[in-house]
Amino acid sequence: MATSKKATLDEVAEAVGGTVIGDGSIEITGVAGIREAQEGELTFLANPRYEPYLSKTHASAIIVAENHLDLGKPLIQNSNPYLTFLKAVRYFAGEGERPEPGIHPTAVVARDACVAPDASVGPLVTIGAGADIGARSVLHPGCVVGPRVRIGEDVLLYPNVVIREDCVVGDRVIIHAGSVIGSDGFGFVRDGEIYRKLPQVGSVVVEEDVEIGANVTIDRATTGTTRIGAGSKIDNLVQIAHNVQVGRNCILVSQVGISGSTSIGDHAILAGQVGVVGHIEIGAGAMVGAQSGVSKSVKAGERVFGYPARPVLQTKRIEASLRHLPELIQTVRELRRRLEELEGKKRTE
Amino acid sequence: MATSKKATLDEVAEAVGGTVIGDGSIEITGVAGIREAQEGELTFLANPRYEPYLSKTHASAIIVAENHLDLGKPLIQNSNPYLTFLKAVRYFAGEGERPEPGIHPTAVVARDACVAPDASVGPLVTIGAGADIGARSVLHPGCVVGPRVRIGEDVLLYPNVVIREDCVVGDRVIIHAGSVIGSDGFGFVRDGEIYRKLPQVGSVVVEEDVEIGANVTIDRATTGTTRIGAGSKIDNLVQIAHNVQVGRNCILVSQVGISGSTSIGDHAILAGQVGVVGHIEIGAGAMVGAQSGVSKSVKAGERVFGYPARPVLQTKRIEASLRHLPELIQTVRELRRRLEELEGKKRTE
Amino acid sequence: MATSKKATLDEVAEAVGGTVIGDGSIEITGVAGIREAQEGELTFLANPRYEPYLSKTHASAIIVAENHLDLGKPLIQNSNPYLTFLKAVRYFAGEGERPEPGIHPTAVVARDACVAPDASVGPLVTIGAGADIGARSVLHPGCVVGPRVRIGEDVLLYPNVVIREDCVVGDRVIIHAGSVIGSDGFGFVRDGEIYRKLPQVGSVVVEEDVEIGANVTIDRATTGTTRIGAGSKIDNLVQIAHNVQVGRNCILVSQVGISGSTSIGDHAILAGQVGVVGHIEIGAGAMVGAQSGVSKSVKAGERVFGYPARPVLQTKRIEASLRHLPELIQTVRELRRRLEELEGKKRTE
Repeated sequence: MATSKKATLDEVAEAVGGTVIGDGSIEITGVAGIREAQEGELTFLANPRYEPYLSKTHASAIIVAENHLDLGKPLIQNSNPYLTFLKAVRYFAGEGERPEPGIHPTAVVARDACVAPDASVGPLVTIGAGADIGARSVLHPGCVVGPRVRIGEDVLLYPNVVIREDCVVGDRVIIHAGSVIGSDGFGFVRDGEIYRKLPQVGSVVVEEDVEIGANVTIDRATTGTTRIGAGSKIDNLVQIAHNVQVGRNCILVSQVGISGSTSIGDHAILAGQVGVVGHIEIGAGAMVGAQSGVSKSVKAGERVFGYPARPVLQTKRIEASLRHLPELIQTVRELRRRLEELEGKKRTE
Repeated sequence: MATSKKATLDEVAEAVGGTVIGDGSIEITGVAGIREAQEGELTFLANPRYEPYLSKTHASAIIVAENHLDLGKPLIQNSNPYLTFLKAVRYFAGEGERPEPGIHPTAVVARDACVAPDASVGPLVTIGAGADIGARSVLHPGCVVGPRVRIGEDVLLYPNVVIREDCVVGDRVIIHAGSVIGSDGFGFVRDGEIYRKLPQVGSVVVEEDVEIGANVTIDRATTGTTRIGAGSKIDNLVQIAHNVQVGRNCILVSQVGISGSTSIGDHAILAGQVGVVGHIEIGAGAMVGAQSGVSKSVKAGERVFGYPARPVLQTKRIEASLRHLPELIQTVRELRRRLEELEGKKRTE
Repeated sequence: MATSKKATLDEVAEAVGGTVIGDGSIEITGVAGIREAQEGELTFLANPRYEPYLSKTHASAIIVAENHLDLGKPLIQNSNPYLTFLKAVRYFAGEGERPEPGIHPTAVVARDACVAPDASVGPLVTIGAGADIGARSVLHPGCVVGPRVRIGEDVLLYPNVVIREDCVVGDRVIIHAGSVIGSDGFGFVRDGEIYRKLPQVGSVVVEEDVEIGANVTIDRATTGTTRIGAGSKIDNLVQIAHNVQVGRNCILVSQVGISGSTSIGDHAILAGQVGVVGHIEIGAGAMVGAQSGVSKSVKAGERVFGYPARPVLQTKRIEASLRHLPELIQTVRELRRRLEELEGKKRTE
């Protein structure tokens, strides 16, 4: 990211926190990943997987956790290089662009909706009756906010987000394009040959500081509330069913699906494409490996993985063993043959 | 769900069907799940998993299948508590809000499109040339209905739904926000180094009483029709490829993916995240467990599960056995050693 | 697909390339799949799975690779029947409808955006400041194109597509309804109890001739570029994370998820629902079977399958063996018993 901003390495280090090792007077023009960085840019090393790039990168300076004296380049040393890099990105990116406050003339806002004067309602947005949009919130083009929805302060809704009636979105929440909050839960009752719809009369509450990716779906509760706890981060194309309770500061990676009424404890991490059945509990701080199928409750702090999900070490041992299974079958057959031979000798002795 | 409606338990029981056991004169103000219900509310017990909550719930009355005399609370007894609860939800929810009939002035409707006078076309909806919108249907803001699309009566399209040209949507169909009906099938022909697009000139027919979740994608047929049979229910983020035939009253849970030209029999149930290859048949009434990978046709009524999908019992037995695999390898090694010892003795005798 | 166009089989064969066997004077009115084709239509046989339909189809003529003399119907013979069928579909479908050039009066186009005079900007489209729309490109209703986006020539954006700021879309790209290009990458840094957002200041480049399905999500890079190589085809509901590099002419089938910074080589094929971890390389021409979980780099040309992904033959052998696992455990137990018996005899001799 080459920007118009420039600073010496010393100035950057002072802004982001860290100790300069080497020439702090060099000019830094931007930040970039270790493989993409160009001359003049600052990069970082956090994942050891990228250590081989340390000697190849075109970056002019590197944020590292430890002293890499032999790199021949100036360094910023900080025990958390990734967080330091984050601060450097912010330092160079600045505040980012922000649409003008006010309601675009093409937006359709219900007469009794309440939009904060410094909120920004973009072109072709629809806001329903009785809805409330908080201070400094930004609704990008094409968003549809249903009746009686409450949107907090400093909320950011990217284009074409849909928030259905009666849902609540907390302060500083970010929702990416195309996501749907408050669609009906998938509830049907079989009545002979057909399925009757169970009306979904609950709502969704997205607490403060949550970020929700693009094209995510979060269903409203049958009765009561589907809740996404404060600070949780949800990646693209995730499905959250009715009455699910997601705790605080959880991480749900892309394409995760959580079935109805399940609860996810604080700080739990679900990796990509994980599926979780309904009516169970994933404990606080639990970690679920990618593509796992979770059909039973998981204890707090437990790490599970696999299909079906088991403790990680158990799954790893099974996986390692599986490679030997075909030959094992051969071995057992051979052992039986040899055993039968011995038994035969025994009998004939 | 606390509502403005109030009724005695006797009145509710008469409306929803069921026998009151205990004091039928108590006032009921709403309905809710067993964990969320508050004083004054009616709840239900259908899933035995929730029996422990019977004694803890704050609900003032409970719908049950059997007589739970010892609960100390009035009951409504009915052999299908879930269906009875559904009726109670409807009883308290009422008809739900309905936008005014008519075409919103910001909607863009082609001159030769035909919109029933009592249909409701919301703000910023686009309706293409020759399209037809049936009586009492509701198109929420941001929907895009392509040329020559036929939408039946009492259809409900939530915000930002897209129906591409020439598709047909039957009576009483509900489609949730962000879903796309009639996108091009994924058909390409390799021609040397590149892929050439096979034009997708078919369409999609969604029969009556189907419900489709949020951000679902249903591709139009290459030629002919992709069909969703009457009464089928499709959850969020499901993918239906070109020329798929879904039968009547099927259940496709969230994130299911069905590849091209596969057919799903009536009353089949596919649990969450199931993947089905193309060109096969899932028989009527078949059940496929969550996350299964189905690569071969499944017979009518069969229950399969796993990756790859096998009969449920077989997969369960394999799963149970897998736990023992690592130690089995050890056991076999030890058996071989001991057998060799015996064989050695044999030889030296 | 019955169309208004009619032609003799000889005329069709000349247009699409192929040798007529039988009566070339019959009239062809359209094209269709072998099961759906009606009298007067031309069908094709490419997948041997459909051979049984050869004798049953109602089609009046068939495109085949080899001479099927005994079919009693006229044939078009060509070594690539699927490609020939594609040409026949194009021949009968004609050019397809195209909206009028120009900007619809309800579109909201920033004053300094640049729209080619023969481009078509549909109703209720939003185009941001400094964006550039190339010649003959078509933006269907509800699309949102962010500031400084560059859209090439002959691009086709279906309804409600969102392209965020600074992204680049090459010539002849097709993006289906509801897809989101340039949403923020999922990047957070843990800081004590909470997660801090890593600003995503890179962009997405979609090269020429790419096709992207419906409700797909492609995240912008943290810094630098997320890239989709020329000619690649991406199916519905696919997730591409930040900084992913997809090569040229790749095929990513529906619901695939690719984690951050992974690269996919040219001509690689990922089947449906495959998940790929971050920071690895899938080599050129590699093939990954449906629902596989890929956690390690895959070599060029390699074929992998399974969860976890292994070489296809290995996974097939393991799968075949698994069926025998439950009985294997029984067998080993029995062998141990018999061995112990032999050992006992040995000791007591």
